[in-house]
Amino acid sequence: MLERYANSEINKIFTDEHKLQLWQETEFAVIRAMLRLRMIDRDDSAAIITTLQESPIDVEWWKKRDKEIHHDLNAFIDERVRYLPTELHQYFHKNITSYDTEEPAFARMLLEAIEVVLPLCGMLKEELITLALKYRFTIMNARTHGQEAELQSFGARCLSWLADYEVAAQALTRTLENLGYSKLSGAIGKYGSLNPEIEKLALADLKFKPFTGATQIMPRILYAPIAQALSNLVSVLDKIAGDIRLAARSGRPIMQEPFQKKQKGSSAMPHKKNTIRTEQVEGMARMARGYANMISESIKTWEERAIEQSSVERVAWPDLFHVTAQALKVMNLVMSGLKVYPDNMLKEIHESRGVYASSEAKEFLKTQGLAHEAAYRIIQLACFNVFEPSSDRLVIRENVPSSFGEANAYLKMISRLKAEKITSIEDFVPRAELRVSDSLDASWEDVHNYNAVLKKLFSDKETVGKWHRLFTPEHLLQHEKTLYEQMGITSQTT
Amino acid sequence: MLERYANSEINKIFTDEHKLQLWQETEFAVIRAMLRLRMIDRDDSAAIITTLQESPIDVEWWKKRDKEIHHDLNAFIDERVRYLPTELHQYFHKNITSYDTEEPAFARMLLEAIEVVLPLCGMLKEELITLALKYRFTIMNARTHGQEAELQSFGARCLSWLADYEVAAQALTRTLENLGYSKLSGAIGKYGSLNPEIEKLALADLKFKPFTGATQIMPRILYAPIAQALSNLVSVLDKIAGDIRLAARSGRPIMQEPFQKKQKGSSAMPHKKNTIRTEQVEGMARMARGYANMISESIKTWEERAIEQSSVERVAWPDLFHVTAQALKVMNLVMSGLKVYPDNMLKEIHESRGVYASSEAKEFLKTQGLAHEAAYRIIQLACFNVFEPSSDRLVIRENVPSSFGEANAYLKMISRLKAEKITSIEDFVPRAELRVSDSLDASWEDVHNYNAVLKKLFSDKETVGKWHRLFTPEHLLQHEKTLYEQMGITSQTT
Amino acid sequence: MLERYANSEINKIFTDEHKLQLWQETEFAVIRAMLRLRMIDRDDSAAIITTLQESPIDVEWWKKRDKEIHHDLNAFIDERVRYLPTELHQYFHKNITSYDTEEPAFARMLLEAIEVVLPLCGMLKEELITLALKYRFTIMNARTHGQEAELQSFGARCLSWLADYEVAAQALTRTLENLGYSKLSGAIGKYGSLNPEIEKLALADLKFKPFTGATQIMPRILYAPIAQALSNLVSVLDKIAGDIRLAARSGRPIMQEPFQKKQKGSSAMPHKKNTIRTEQVEGMARMARGYANMISESIKTWEERAIEQSSVERVAWPDLFHVTAQALKVMNLVMSGLKVYPDNMLKEIHESRGVYASSEAKEFLKTQGLAHEAAYRIIQLACFNVFEPSSDRLVIRENVPSSFGEANAYLKMISRLKAEKITSIEDFVPRAELRVSDSLDASWEDVHNYNAVLKKLFSDKETVGKWHRLFTPEHLLQHEKTLYEQMGITSQTT
Amino acid sequence: MLERYANSEINKIFTDEHKLQLWQETEFAVIRAMLRLRMIDRDDSAAIITTLQESPIDVEWWKKRDKEIHHDLNAFIDERVRYLPTELHQYFHKNITSYDTEEPAFARMLLEAIEVVLPLCGMLKEELITLALKYRFTIMNARTHGQEAELQSFGARCLSWLADYEVAAQALTRTLENLGYSKLSGAIGKYGSLNPEIEKLALADLKFKPFTGATQIMPRILYAPIAQALSNLVSVLDKIAGDIRLAARSGRPIMQEPFQKKQKGSSAMPHKKNTIRTEQVEGMARMARGYANMISESIKTWEERAIEQSSVERVAWPDLFHVTAQALKVMNLVMSGLKVYPDNMLKEIHESRGVYASSEAKEFLKTQGLAHEAAYRIIQLACFNVFEPSSDRLVIRENVPSSFGEANAYLKMISRLKAEKITSIEDFVPRAELRVSDSLDASWEDVHNYNAVLKKLFSDKETVGKWHRLFTPEHLLQHEKTLYEQMGITSQTT
Repeated sequence: MLERYANSEINKIFTDEHKLQLWQETEFAVIRAMLRLRMIDRDDSAAIITTLQESPIDVEWWKKRDKEIHHDLNAFIDERVRYLPTELHQYFHKNITSYDTEEPAFARMLLEAIEVVLPLCGMLKEELITLALKYRFTIMNARTHGQEAELQSFGARCLSWLADYEVAAQALTRTLENLGYSKLSGAIGKYGSLNPEIEKLALADLKFKPFTGATQIMPRILYAPIAQALSNLVSVLDKIAGDIRLAARSGRPIMQEPFQKKQKGSSAMPHKKNTIRTEQVEGMARMARGYANMISESIKTWEERAIEQSSVERVAWPDLFHVTAQALKVMNLVMSGLKVYPDNMLKEIHESRGVYASSEAKEFLKTQGLAHEAAYRIIQLACFNVFEPSSDRLVIRENVPSSFGEANAYLKMISRLKAEKITSIEDFVPRAELRVSDSLDASWEDVHNYNAVLKKLFSDKETVGKWHRLFTPEHLLQHEKTLYEQMGITSQTT
Repeated sequence: MLERYANSEINKIFTDEHKLQLWQETEFAVIRAMLRLRMIDRDDSAAIITTLQESPIDVEWWKKRDKEIHHDLNAFIDERVRYLPTELHQYFHKNITSYDTEEPAFARMLLEAIEVVLPLCGMLKEELITLALKYRFTIMNARTHGQEAELQSFGARCLSWLADYEVAAQALTRTLENLGYSKLSGAIGKYGSLNPEIEKLALADLKFKPFTGATQIMPRILYAPIAQALSNLVSVLDKIAGDIRLAARSGRPIMQEPFQKKQKGSSAMPHKKNTIRTEQVEGMARMARGYANMISESIKTWEERAIEQSSVERVAWPDLFHVTAQALKVMNLVMSGLKVYPDNMLKEIHESRGVYASSEAKEFLKTQGLAHEAAYRIIQLACFNVFEPSSDRLVIRENVPSSFGEANAYLKMISRLKAEKITSIEDFVPRAELRVSDSLDASWEDVHNYNAVLKKLFSDKETVGKWHRLFTPEHLLQHEKTLYEQMGITSQTT
Repeated sequence: MLERYANSEINKIFTDEHKLQLWQETEFAVIRAMLRLRMIDRDDSAAIITTLQESPIDVEWWKKRDKEIHHDLNAFIDERVRYLPTELHQYFHKNITSYDTEEPAFARMLLEAIEVVLPLCGMLKEELITLALKYRFTIMNARTHGQEAELQSFGARCLSWLADYEVAAQALTRTLENLGYSKLSGAIGKYGSLNPEIEKLALADLKFKPFTGATQIMPRILYAPIAQALSNLVSVLDKIAGDIRLAARSGRPIMQEPFQKKQKGSSAMPHKKNTIRTEQVEGMARMARGYANMISESIKTWEERAIEQSSVERVAWPDLFHVTAQALKVMNLVMSGLKVYPDNMLKEIHESRGVYASSEAKEFLKTQGLAHEAAYRIIQLACFNVFEPSSDRLVIRENVPSSFGEANAYLKMISRLKAEKITSIEDFVPRAELRVSDSLDASWEDVHNYNAVLKKLFSDKETVGKWHRLFTPEHLLQHEKTLYEQMGITSQTT
Repeated sequence: MLERYANSEINKIFTDEHKLQLWQETEFAVIRAMLRLRMIDRDDSAAIITTLQESPIDVEWWKKRDKEIHHDLNAFIDERVRYLPTELHQYFHKNITSYDTEEPAFARMLLEAIEVVLPLCGMLKEELITLALKYRFTIMNARTHGQEAELQSFGARCLSWLADYEVAAQALTRTLENLGYSKLSGAIGKYGSLNPEIEKLALADLKFKPFTGATQIMPRILYAPIAQALSNLVSVLDKIAGDIRLAARSGRPIMQEPFQKKQKGSSAMPHKKNTIRTEQVEGMARMARGYANMISESIKTWEERAIEQSSVERVAWPDLFHVTAQALKVMNLVMSGLKVYPDNMLKEIHESRGVYASSEAKEFLKTQGLAHEAAYRIIQLACFNVFEPSSDRLVIRENVPSSFGEANAYLKMISRLKAEKITSIEDFVPRAELRVSDSLDASWEDVHNYNAVLKKLFSDKETVGKWHRLFTPEHLLQHEKTLYEQMGITSQTT
């Protein structure tokens, strides 16, 4: 992985140095197992282990040998037995095959890499909880299809992010189970002359259970779900990152990722505060999917194994862990420094003209005896009516300029327009002044009838009172506390 | 494909009826080729062709036979020779193999399906040109990273969409070349006892050139690029659709996809005008990539062929064409009914406070002798300054509410705030009133120096005049006409 | 899905009829919950449920309405409330949003579809166990890299297939957990005015737990792993299918998929027994990956939801289930009718000249005091020596013919060659007649020394006896019983 | 990319050093363009270019700066202008945006990388032609579905490989066209105050044509097809590699990849000659598809651009080129050292008992007046008959051993069986001794009738003569010369 996106701990795990060390640990575990089964005597086993522990593995020698014999594990054996007297050679890598040595090491590397990722996950969880608590009562428009929907607190949105994240993180944690197994069952997994007790003892020593039914290698069906879980996790980060990008759209951003004081947004345009971090997370998600696909295609192999998966795994696993760690790191940075603009959130709510309670309003009309269709259409029409542009605006809207000079004139015109009066459906509906709209198939007569109904309805003071209560955050967000309770997020501030 | 997303013409192309008809055409072409090579006499060839033309293929019989013998082409032969006297059997499907019959038919179906797609492409092109001309002078903020960038006309954005689209459509058209070839070279593609002249003549009759070097089948490397071109095309549609979704975000939408008068946006919230069509296009793009991947994985086959690709192709090709056609249909509908709100575009420009000319402004300062870094930082600071919130806003921004009641109070407060004064950097910079900003690492002293420089600079009237010209659409968009010219989009309105 | 690959039960699950039925069940559950919370009285709730149960849903009416209003759930409500008196309209779909109705139905459909798949899995498991027991002592060459490796029983290979399969099937079963949750929490998942008790009661009624933190929809991160598990399962089937294809290669097939008596292998070549079923499984695996990718890309959505995932899910889920069921069905057919040729397996072993014990042989030499490298190279050389062609063969090997006439002469020549004497390393090594080989970098002197060592070693009768024991199945496969025991596969025949 | 799979030339192309150098070339081209348009005077432009050429770019300084300001192109400008007097700053990177500098450099890097790949392609083509000529008359079984099909020469198979390869390589070459364009059109691609003449001149200087309609960046739809073409090429290499793996299956390999003298096949089993190189190519194909997918997903970006594609491209492009180059390198090694065993090919043909001419034989019967179905079934039955095992074999086949001792006894038995008599359908059919077969649904009566027909037919000497001619390579492969001619592969040996 490019330095720019690489995680140094992941890098260490996948170095040759570390891999060869882990290979040696397998070999030692086998020798210790042989000792317990009295297949080697104490002195010989001690001699091997001590000698090799004291003779650091020469990675360069090993690489050179590998190039010569085209077999990395054999090259490792050759490197190691150099330090042993000939009569002890027979005990080193005895009866086992390359992948007996490599599989426990490989599973160990995946475990170690997941252990790098999980704390980064934990940090993100903490950040999300902190935000959820801090913005417990900071209200904003929810959006479905990019359109203003009901109100919510920003804290509650953080809870949804958290819920998504938790599903992904727990799925990743669950894959650790798949890494609890390994194999030491010989060249085709049927033990050959290898005593199955060796496998049991040596794997126990290495903290694995034997996987029964392996071939020369562990079945790759065990590992593909880990790659998919990592990729899915990054997709969830991308979902959160995407929401922040949408929130940071200029005009009136309601959030922004942190921007450092010396940062430059653009070489041409000095005003830019670009969402480069959250955008990068989308890149990471695309990469993660690509790596997971490479690994998923590698479930299949010929018979007792072929080596198609080897090159894929050498490349895709470390790189997949790098992009996962990078995406987590970036999101931790973004969430911990997230800039939130409650004033802009409120402004947005104000300008949304009460439509956030359109569902409430419609249901209210139904409780007052209106049929489903009528209630729906009345509120729909009211919503469309309150967004109708002023006549000044309409002129501009409907006249397409035919030169940039004209365009400039319109720009000046709009700059000078008085601030529009913003009417909420909260006030508009009780006035019973619905108008026919271009956007809706309701006749003049329909509208007349609707108004008649409304007029009658809102002649009653109590009804009006109930109506206005519908539009308050206290009413609209009354049930968010349930979310906090059910997710066990308790706040000092409540 | 589900009825909901299916194209009826594509459906017809991939019916069994049509396929069997095309198979018969291959067989006839072979017989006509044999006639020309005097391998069959005129009467026999006429008898076969006439008899079979007069005996419609019984698809149900064929299906039943296929289930029995597990070989669809053999079942077809069995169905056909029923109508022929025994002595003519030898001439039907003579010396050729199933895929000799099927390959020309398959290539024909792909050609026909592309011919369904291309006119839909053509319509989209027309729509884009119409929009580009109509909105030649309708100005809007361009956006990079979701942030306001320089000004552009909406017409010019349509030209960028068009340019993207054209690359994709031309690439698709270019793949037609790959469909100019087919094969009739026997069971392993080495002709066996089949005279190569038969291939030449029969394929010419079917309007194909022979592909030399086929195995039992045409190499799938010829077809994968077609699937990729279709998928790439849908990705481009998704790019355009995405831009419309971003433009339709409520608050102040600058565009909207058409919304029918009886349409309902949401079962709960009657006010919604959801971007369901453009969102669907993203779904289509995901599907198209999936189908293209299935087909790309099918380039590889064993030796002179195996049949792994067959099931994939039966499913993925028609479905890929359906989603492509559906995405095009939806986009044609969206573009032809696109609602554009120039007033909101202008309002957005106005509120962007002149930052659209920040690059111009920076370059201007450089022409006045400022160093690159100073020019950049002055304009950056000015941009940040003009967006600083009023003190009323700041109070709201910095006080996180601790109850929904409090949140409601803030909402009321913001609703009652007087409209903010909107200052453009156009006016702000010449005043030389830069202030220290939290967002930028510029000391009080730096800022003081910047102001001194600005004061001196703008003491000169001519400079001021030049400065103001920078901010006009006439100046900023002066070069868009080049785009129109280079793309050959000529407007009556210019 | 094409009829050819479609599963009729899966088809039923994903019909409109069934979906609308499930939607109605959600609505009823909500009404019953309201009754328990006294939000509707007993008579009204009974009236609604009884009336609607007695009024079958008119799917055609619904479709027409959907085309008009572009909202399938609203169209459903419209269809349903037709049968209710106006005053009861308010209770139907009260306070909830489309996806509150749809999500439990969707999860139910996935559950039902998995329940179609699991019994097919169970059948495959049974077939594999049956084969493992039947062929407990039928010996064959294992193969790594397509090369003969050690011996194994065919039963033991079936156990490896079973182990792979079990990992995949258990992972699929585990995803059922993700389907234990659903949501009924309103338009943005924050309940709005919807009492959270409704969700709890209604979902319990539908046998779901509430997922806390949903938006308008359930997070798609819950469902992607199911698609991946299905796709992984099909990849495992493809692995098994691939092994059967490799075993069925003509010349000397050791297995064949069943071939029906009326089946035709090829339209041109009547002798063919093509592996069309196992090849189809590879096609299914490619498709499954494609569908899983479509679904994996759909984890991300905007904010409280957009509808990009909807079209993907309508298509990809049923089709993914179809290809999974089809792959299972095909594999069940193949495994239950699998033709096994133990004679060809034995012939192959015989011709492999004892190399299946090369590992044993090498280790044996090490126990006799040889260094690792020497032991390795001696056995390697012996293996290469016993495969050296006879001089007659060598002539043919080294003379590339320059005409087909010459090629024919060579063919006749090889047809008349006496059967070669097949020498096993079992007999060859003790004879100490190693020869220099082109394939190995061992000098004449090295070889001389090797022979000297061997001569000395095998002068001892006891050593020779031990040596020959190495090559017996009793010795070589002694540990396979461990596999059977550990996997709990008990045989009557042992 | 891991050192193990990396290509050093590709590495150089994608270094920071080289990239920054190319960025500088863009900047110089802009300055030279300004000079021609008299926007800078000769001395100033010369001063900038000379000074900067003489001041090597300090990559470490640049990296440090990038980390500070989070903008790599701005960091580059900062590094460069350090060497320029303040008054010249205004001319450096004037009016253009980061991606104006970067896009020509990026396209240049892709061009350079393709130029590394193409000669490797050329070498493969040469190897394939050499093999096709050398083995012009070396006959082998073609295989469809892994089953023996008709005869072919190995040379002709090489031609099929070549044809596949050529389609892929030509498609790659054609994508060079897409790299003939670049952009220099400012921050949103509408030129802003940038004179379009600058773009024209500067790009011409850099050997590009302007792409009209770009946004801030070139549309990624131009580049995705290049990634797909690379990935498709590797898939074709994987197809060829797969055929070699199949041919190298032990027992009786007909080809092998080169095996070096010091190579070790397995740590456990010294006899192994594993197909590790060709297997690696399958790994490369999986990776290539993964990288191509990452790039294909990056066609979409927001509006005038966002930066999601940047991280993907930094990683996926070089790695995709590395795996392509590695796959080509491996295949060149394999093809140039390919071991071919014509004797084993002939042995295989001999043992295939004449079925390679089953199509000929069937057609021959049809010319003798038999109906299609009868001719098909007779030859099918004959093919099945000649492969029926001897009674000794049948005993072994049908008795599943119940212990390994028994298995060993069967093994000894088969080792001692006399070589089977191998009967070709060439001899069998004229004898008219067809037998009822378990595998075919032909009654005793049918078979009796078939034999009667055959007896009559082959009573005629001339017919018998014609029949035997069918089975000769001269007859069967008579049309291969057409392939050589049409592909323009001319041999000295013909």
